[in-house]
Amino acid sequence: MSQVTKKIAVLGSTGSIGQQTLDVVRTLPHQFRIVGLAAGKNIDLLTKQINEFKPGFIYFQDKKAQARLANTECEFLSLEDIACHPQVDIVVVATSGKSGLSATLAAVKAGKNIALANKESLVMAGALITSEAKLNDAHILPIDSEHSAIWQCLKGETQPATQLILTASGGPFRGYSPTQLKRVTTKQALSHPSWQMGKKVTIDSATLMNKGLEVIEAHWLFDMPFENIKVLIHPQSIVHSMVEFIDGSIKAQLSYPDMRLPIQYALSYPERLPNPRLPKLDWSHFNNLTFEQPNLNTFPCLKLAIEAGKKGGTYPSALCAADEVAVEQFLLQRIEFIDIVNLVERVLEKHQSVAHPSLEEIIATDTWAREKIMQFITGG
Amino acid sequence: MSQVTKKIAVLGSTGSIGQQTLDVVRTLPHQFRIVGLAAGKNIDLLTKQINEFKPGFIYFQDKKAQARLANTECEFLSLEDIACHPQVDIVVVATSGKSGLSATLAAVKAGKNIALANKESLVMAGALITSEAKLNDAHILPIDSEHSAIWQCLKGETQPATQLILTASGGPFRGYSPTQLKRVTTKQALSHPSWQMGKKVTIDSATLMNKGLEVIEAHWLFDMPFENIKVLIHPQSIVHSMVEFIDGSIKAQLSYPDMRLPIQYALSYPERLPNPRLPKLDWSHFNNLTFEQPNLNTFPCLKLAIEAGKKGGTYPSALCAADEVAVEQFLLQRIEFIDIVNLVERVLEKHQSVAHPSLEEIIATDTWAREKIMQFITGG
Repeated sequence: MSQVTKKIAVLGSTGSIGQQTLDVVRTLPHQFRIVGLAAGKNIDLLTKQINEFKPGFIYFQDKKAQARLANTECEFLSLEDIACHPQVDIVVVATSGKSGLSATLAAVKAGKNIALANKESLVMAGALITSEAKLNDAHILPIDSEHSAIWQCLKGETQPATQLILTASGGPFRGYSPTQLKRVTTKQALSHPSWQMGKKVTIDSATLMNKGLEVIEAHWLFDMPFENIKVLIHPQSIVHSMVEFIDGSIKAQLSYPDMRLPIQYALSYPERLPNPRLPKLDWSHFNNLTFEQPNLNTFPCLKLAIEAGKKGGTYPSALCAADEVAVEQFLLQRIEFIDIVNLVERVLEKHQSVAHPSLEEIIATDTWAREKIMQFITGG
Repeated sequence: MSQVTKKIAVLGSTGSIGQQTLDVVRTLPHQFRIVGLAAGKNIDLLTKQINEFKPGFIYFQDKKAQARLANTECEFLSLEDIACHPQVDIVVVATSGKSGLSATLAAVKAGKNIALANKESLVMAGALITSEAKLNDAHILPIDSEHSAIWQCLKGETQPATQLILTASGGPFRGYSPTQLKRVTTKQALSHPSWQMGKKVTIDSATLMNKGLEVIEAHWLFDMPFENIKVLIHPQSIVHSMVEFIDGSIKAQLSYPDMRLPIQYALSYPERLPNPRLPKLDWSHFNNLTFEQPNLNTFPCLKLAIEAGKKGGTYPSALCAADEVAVEQFLLQRIEFIDIVNLVERVLEKHQSVAHPSLEEIIATDTWAREKIMQFITGG
């Protein structure tokens, strides 16, 4: 076990992944130390976190409310400055949306180790980020359970995989018909059968948009053609993903659905660390792992996302932005569940993609898609 | 892909594993070349193999029948001389019983790479073989599907595993009561639900003795305490075994039950090679992987073997020898299926174990146990 304490900055520390990252650090204080924290909205929780972890520098999105943090001894920095701060060994990017993208890009350019939970970064700017990572010898350490599983299965293999098999729980509406989906409520969509997550990703899991975004992430993270990335529904959420090799052998990674394991693996990599708070699989408590093909009639978001990924350019950015707004509007009960896919599809149909986009073009697409979908929703 | 052709000797080339090894070599002629073959009984098949693979040296157990091979251009050598021949890069030890043991020991002392299918070697002489392997920088490459799975899952991991989970199909009598077992026939016991194997290992799979022997092998191969080796019944034989790590993460290896995959992996290690004859898992053809605890009332051989392994000394040798005779006698329909465990248990009860046994003491135990069990059977 390494005796060096790794210094961690957590961007998005008050969100679900951020809090679970701090739980891991709390349990392993000799291995990890928090040097930076960044949050968007929850100033009370951030204050508690500052008192507990005593970071050297912080960020809070709301500059007015920030005054309430004035009596801490922390330095106030931008998200990007935290992401590439020389004191930071690993940046955990657990913010959602665009803010994650610019922070990830800053960290990549600074050659950091980036424990990446923010999906938008790779979905919107996979080509940019991975090429900058190569240039600057930055390492992207996936935190999503699926990508962590693939990464763990690839460990030590000297040849590329031939196929990645991403598992998906199928969400609360697995087995529903398209007709049944018309009547589902926000509350039902927020009741994920196996994972405790933030609201956005929970709704994306119910539509399977989340799995589509993960396919795009996997494409960039593991340099794998879309044709060789499969999705398999696995309701028990025990097998987190699988990798097939050139000889036909498949490796899978299994555990209870608990995000602290992939978070800890990204932080401790290449080592593994004992953590008494991580549950160990008890095979006497379950006996059945099932697998089925995803139903693309009920879950067209999956197909839509993979197609956007294959088309490339700014299509994935338009998809991401439109989906984010659609999910917000669904959570506000302004649109129905099945409107999410219909609206996102309409945005993509209208989109004029830019090949090999710059960061500015990606951000412009994001802005355009948000406006476009709101026009559709408000009839404007 | 490596351009160097590996030179292979196959001990036990006419048996099930031997034939499948030759199938792999036949499919990958640029990667592998057969330089030595050794067989015990089937001279017709050996002759065909010699004509096809043109080895430089051969061994045939029956010296009289050997005359029929006189017109080949091969040199006749002993098993041990083939095992440590300077031309050999990898020795595949696929003989059964004691002959495998002395060949393995010869190969280990010569610092060879040994693709090991012979169970008796490690069960009877695990301490001897693993210490000689360390001394002489020999590498034991497991061929059993379970140990290959574990080995694949450990690839690239820098820390020891915390638990090995060996899967077992459960054999043809899974779910039987001890009473039902009293009436089973030789034919039923030879009908394995998922694996095509030799008769001895098929019967050992029906009693679960095979899994007990594999636990002992795993103990030696992976330097793992018996307490941390679990057996899980998995009737579909798709997950070939699993490894748990210090952080609670589990890796599993999956494929259709086809011994050519672990054989090829041992030969191609550390690389993997494409082989169009190896079937790839088709997830649309199955959807359910089940796991259950082994029933030690129905399958006391499993417990018996693990206990012999824990006690160590010459107990595992006595177990191995007694079981080999018991299975032979069962196949000859001279004893009942449930007599196998009862007889082996009686031999173990009578055994006076030697701690840290030499090869001679191990072989003496083998002889003693064979005589003892025949006394019990014949009432002598």
